[in-house]
Amino acid sequence: MYSHTFHKRVRYGETDKMGYLYYGRYADLYEIGRVEMLRSLGLTYKNMEEKEGIMLPVKSLQMRFVRPANYDELLAIKTTLRHLPQKDIVFQVEIFNEKNKLVNGGSVRLAFVEMKTNKTVGAPEFLLEKLRPFFGVAT
Amino acid sequence: MYSHTFHKRVRYGETDKMGYLYYGRYADLYEIGRVEMLRSLGLTYKNMEEKEGIMLPVKSLQMRFVRPANYDELLAIKTTLRHLPQKDIVFQVEIFNEKNKLVNGGSVRLAFVEMKTNKTVGAPEFLLEKLRPFFGVAT
Amino acid sequence: MYSHTFHKRVRYGETDKMGYLYYGRYADLYEIGRVEMLRSLGLTYKNMEEKEGIMLPVKSLQMRFVRPANYDELLAIKTTLRHLPQKDIVFQVEIFNEKNKLVNGGSVRLAFVEMKTNKTVGAPEFLLEKLRPFFGVAT
Amino acid sequence: MYSHTFHKRVRYGETDKMGYLYYGRYADLYEIGRVEMLRSLGLTYKNMEEKEGIMLPVKSLQMRFVRPANYDELLAIKTTLRHLPQKDIVFQVEIFNEKNKLVNGGSVRLAFVEMKTNKTVGAPEFLLEKLRPFFGVAT
Repeated sequence: MYSHTFHKRVRYGETDKMGYLYYGRYADLYEIGRVEMLRSLGLTYKNMEEKEGIMLPVKSLQMRFVRPANYDELLAIKTTLRHLPQKDIVFQVEIFNEKNKLVNGGSVRLAFVEMKTNKTVGAPEFLLEKLRPFFGVAT
Repeated sequence: MYSHTFHKRVRYGETDKMGYLYYGRYADLYEIGRVEMLRSLGLTYKNMEEKEGIMLPVKSLQMRFVRPANYDELLAIKTTLRHLPQKDIVFQVEIFNEKNKLVNGGSVRLAFVEMKTNKTVGAPEFLLEKLRPFFGVAT
Repeated sequence: MYSHTFHKRVRYGETDKMGYLYYGRYADLYEIGRVEMLRSLGLTYKNMEEKEGIMLPVKSLQMRFVRPANYDELLAIKTTLRHLPQKDIVFQVEIFNEKNKLVNGGSVRLAFVEMKTNKTVGAPEFLLEKLRPFFGVAT
Repeated sequence: MYSHTFHKRVRYGETDKMGYLYYGRYADLYEIGRVEMLRSLGLTYKNMEEKEGIMLPVKSLQMRFVRPANYDELLAIKTTLRHLPQKDIVFQVEIFNEKNKLVNGGSVRLAFVEMKTNKTVGAPEFLLEKLRPFFGVAT
């Protein structure tokens, strides 16, 4: 298992008339969570696309909205990989408010697509190499 | 059952570096779909909040991304109520591209909250009244 | 002179905590205005990029915020070309609310860049051809 | 004079089809810049609204786009007050990329509005108090 937490403040432009973080902005937080998890492993999504020619389109998304997030709150986005990715990669996400209460929880599934051929290719070796130590797999 | 289709063009600011509609903008389309469905029934979400004092926070969201949506495509957002709402209301959403191919499908569940008390109250009568004729319920 | 008006409704996700259209979403409306003006001339920005290889990066933007725009209001985005474009193209924009009161006014200046060479190239002939009849220029 | 710099990374959802930060997202960066400047003075915009009942609607905005900002770049948003605010407050903004090159520069003018009465009231004393030491004004 591998977990990583990143903090992100709720901005004015992300709130809505109800006064809370708009429900449609949570997917942006999920993206920030997984990109920063990759960075914590020494990988950047930018390089994946630009150097390795691999992009990760989203296949599915599901989320529960537990309580509202307020303007200016510093949210903690906790992103977890429960399994080594194979064909797809699934990120579990939990978002906590400043009182450490759960705001939102869910998961997002992405495929690995080779940009040159536009074909799904499964988890690339450079990613698995970084992840194996956290999954008790002999390398 | 009640269905309603609304058209929405993919704007430049909604695309991302991949060249397609960003995955995080689909929740905005789901919102447009359900608001326009309500309008087709003679109701506005604005009035629900401002006149009736009822707001509809989102409880959960799930979506599958079937194929990408291109810049400038005129998408058809088809929103369906399969059941009369009771405690919650669940909108089924399908988004089709200009070739009538499915781009994205999912559902979103919302609660009815009385703004004055901040308590969930279940589907209000003014909404049920509009919907019953489509669900074969004697009124 | 050439003017074109396009209507756009203020969506929930575009409002902010103040209850109005967020100031940062107006640039999106300006983009919609100029893209729909081009479409009214029989041109699409999509084709400009994909067929003609010309993109129009924004060079400058200025806007005044006259009065707030409310949730669910159907705004009229009036986009005007006062001059035939030469090196740059300048769109004048006025946004009116449902009572026909001015909400926002401003202008945006864009360059014409050949995507292949990444060089500015000035207004392309296929655009000037469409515009000349509105500027009293013999063709 | 008072200046403050805050860093913000360009996120995938903020890029567009051109591959750069979308021009319409810069206003969001300007907002982040001024809110973080206020925080550096020990003030929060949140408290201004919720405790002091003062909101700051934007009156005008102007920006020049000097060079594009790339996905994943860590931008430096430098926000400067050149004058003590009186009736309005004007923030000068410069955004630099990772190579310290200017990406965008501009300014934004906001009014001080008492929320209770919805009237403009000029710069409040609790703000002037924090700012005077930086403007060589005896307090």
